[in-house]
Amino acid sequence: MPVSKTSKSTRPLILGNAAIGQSGGPTAVINQSLVGVIEGLKSFKSIKKVYGLRHGVSGLVKSPAEMIDLGKLSAARLNAIAKSPSASLGSSRDKPDALYCAKILQACKHANIRYFFYIGGNDSSDTCRIVSELAEGNGYDMRCFHVPKTVDNDLMMSDHTPGFPSAARFVATAFMADNLDNASLPGVKINVVMGRHAGFLTAASALGRKGASDGPHLIYLPEVPFSVDAFIADVQGVFDRLGRCQVAVSEGIQTADGRAVAESLIEGLDRDAHGNIQLSGVGGLGDALAGLVKKRVKKKDGKAPRVRADTFGYLQRCWPDPSPVDSREARGVGKFAARLAAKGASSGSVAIVRASGKTYKSVFQRIELRDVAAKTRHMPVEYINGRNDVSPAFIKYATPLVGKLPELAHL
Amino acid sequence: MPVSKTSKSTRPLILGNAAIGQSGGPTAVINQSLVGVIEGLKSFKSIKKVYGLRHGVSGLVKSPAEMIDLGKLSAARLNAIAKSPSASLGSSRDKPDALYCAKILQACKHANIRYFFYIGGNDSSDTCRIVSELAEGNGYDMRCFHVPKTVDNDLMMSDHTPGFPSAARFVATAFMADNLDNASLPGVKINVVMGRHAGFLTAASALGRKGASDGPHLIYLPEVPFSVDAFIADVQGVFDRLGRCQVAVSEGIQTADGRAVAESLIEGLDRDAHGNIQLSGVGGLGDALAGLVKKRVKKKDGKAPRVRADTFGYLQRCWPDPSPVDSREARGVGKFAARLAAKGASSGSVAIVRASGKTYKSVFQRIELRDVAAKTRHMPVEYINGRNDVSPAFIKYATPLVGKLPELAHL
Repeated sequence: MPVSKTSKSTRPLILGNAAIGQSGGPTAVINQSLVGVIEGLKSFKSIKKVYGLRHGVSGLVKSPAEMIDLGKLSAARLNAIAKSPSASLGSSRDKPDALYCAKILQACKHANIRYFFYIGGNDSSDTCRIVSELAEGNGYDMRCFHVPKTVDNDLMMSDHTPGFPSAARFVATAFMADNLDNASLPGVKINVVMGRHAGFLTAASALGRKGASDGPHLIYLPEVPFSVDAFIADVQGVFDRLGRCQVAVSEGIQTADGRAVAESLIEGLDRDAHGNIQLSGVGGLGDALAGLVKKRVKKKDGKAPRVRADTFGYLQRCWPDPSPVDSREARGVGKFAARLAAKGASSGSVAIVRASGKTYKSVFQRIELRDVAAKTRHMPVEYINGRNDVSPAFIKYATPLVGKLPELAHL
Repeated sequence: MPVSKTSKSTRPLILGNAAIGQSGGPTAVINQSLVGVIEGLKSFKSIKKVYGLRHGVSGLVKSPAEMIDLGKLSAARLNAIAKSPSASLGSSRDKPDALYCAKILQACKHANIRYFFYIGGNDSSDTCRIVSELAEGNGYDMRCFHVPKTVDNDLMMSDHTPGFPSAARFVATAFMADNLDNASLPGVKINVVMGRHAGFLTAASALGRKGASDGPHLIYLPEVPFSVDAFIADVQGVFDRLGRCQVAVSEGIQTADGRAVAESLIEGLDRDAHGNIQLSGVGGLGDALAGLVKKRVKKKDGKAPRVRADTFGYLQRCWPDPSPVDSREARGVGKFAARLAAKGASSGSVAIVRASGKTYKSVFQRIELRDVAAKTRHMPVEYINGRNDVSPAFIKYATPLVGKLPELAHL
């Protein structure tokens, strides 16, 4: 079990209510964190009510009356929810500006919310930061705690983020099974993996690779500039050697000028409130790359190989077979955030830090909101191997996180 | 355990070799059938060698020297292979014509193959039929046994086909998890499911549905003529009522004139050797339907709802968490086919017949190749409910096949 480290920066406790919200893309374990916060607050006498926000800050601002009294839920019900994927309170994609944050603060004041827990990624930590600063500027004592969550694994200061190990487990398993499928009906198979800016999840495609001829044979990360010509040459090379080629492509691959490949290959993509183009829930990137391979890669007879593309989509973040480490840690970060509040800590976020030693262990640490807010962590160079693979250091890093993978055999 | 019924149509046994091939799209349990045949042949004294064909009849014709001696594999190795998805011998998409079948027969004669087992769908049973008739016409005593396999569940004479229950298990689980994802970030979510002509797999999306507001809210099968206008009206209706809508769409949906919707909505689709357009391994249908919803479905404020589409792709047929019933039956049909051969039965196929009684049981039966060859079974009308749902009779039919589904909770 993770060991808790306490913070030195504390303030006197204040009586009032707590609110918990979930934000951004759901994960398989985000409800573990929700239940972790609820459990952690149970013995905290300064708190009268623990409210659940429907659809994060969006619900708080638009329909504050719909807040749920989470203190009334039984332990059995909480455990059942913790084990289920998706944001059980409902999530939100809103990115609050100054006016929106003022409304959040107003709603918090109205409900006497003094402890605000927001489970989400780097945008959510930024919301925590702004609201926390606004409250301080207004002389309203409210502590805001960001509870980390993202399948992208792109938060600063953390060894990894809750949600990533389970999504990585899905991706690794999918590539193992699909590798056998590709071997049985040889051709070029492109699988598009989530991860807008960080390649960790795409890199996880390699975690089930055992033999030298096992896929994925090529891995394209957003951190490595993507060139169509190099991609075609890579696929041709693998295909010439093995008669097949399984490719892992991040949805966020970019050309050297920082432009999303998806953007240059597909027309009419949506943009969300953050200005990000819609990469998930659309099959276009895989289809476009498959089209290029069909045109330019050749079999020995000069014909195009069999080419297929799958975009793994939302199953990556909601598949109900979470990594055991992830389930435990996601619960743990929630509990830790609640205990920080109970100990009078100032607003902050929680980081997972890997303990040294032979067997995997982690500890939780309070970190400042400004150190995680609106920042993006990328794959470190030592996890990347050339232009189309991951390094043994990445395999060593990620293997203990995903849990036992299936054992698959092949003739 | 399934009980074997023997055939009355038998002929004297002949000494020689056996060959086993796998054909068509792989499944999560097609290797169970392979191992079932091998095990079933072990005590069959008339057989000298048991050969495995690399990539089905394609390998037999092009590179007969690459056949594998399957008799040398240990029981432990066989068990490991049986539990792994994909066609371990390699599969083939070839559809043999008369000349091709003559080459198959020639290769069989050359290797003294007297027992030919072909694990596949309705096209593979047709190959068995042609080769069997050709052998008989040539006075070459060779018995051809078709061992059923297809995730589409579209073989005649069978209650269901090996491969379907495991794929249905994946689809049901995926819809359950994605339903929670959709509830947490409400919008319209379209999931495209495999099944070119038969809607069984798409129908399986409903197997995890519990509450009245659970998705899938709309299910579109190839058996029910698809109209874009009706689809838009359906989605608008559900969205108005629930504020979200999860949709299951078969890749094979057709308009009233029998034209594939995918064909009318997407440019430049591939065709395979059977003349079928490529429906899997391409995200276009989902994206096209999502585009229509974005244009024509409106929120109360007149804006387009959040719309996403995922195409589940090949993970449906290879996900390594097979249904226990499916694993057992797939092994069983292989063993049963081998025993038919050992008992001197004429060429034929195997059907799974559901036994009457309260708890689920099945028996295997020899059927004629002509009764299954190149024919397609569709969803019976009693499994269909109106233009966009399945009936309670389908739920009753499919529930015992998929095994225990995850228990998911939601606030």
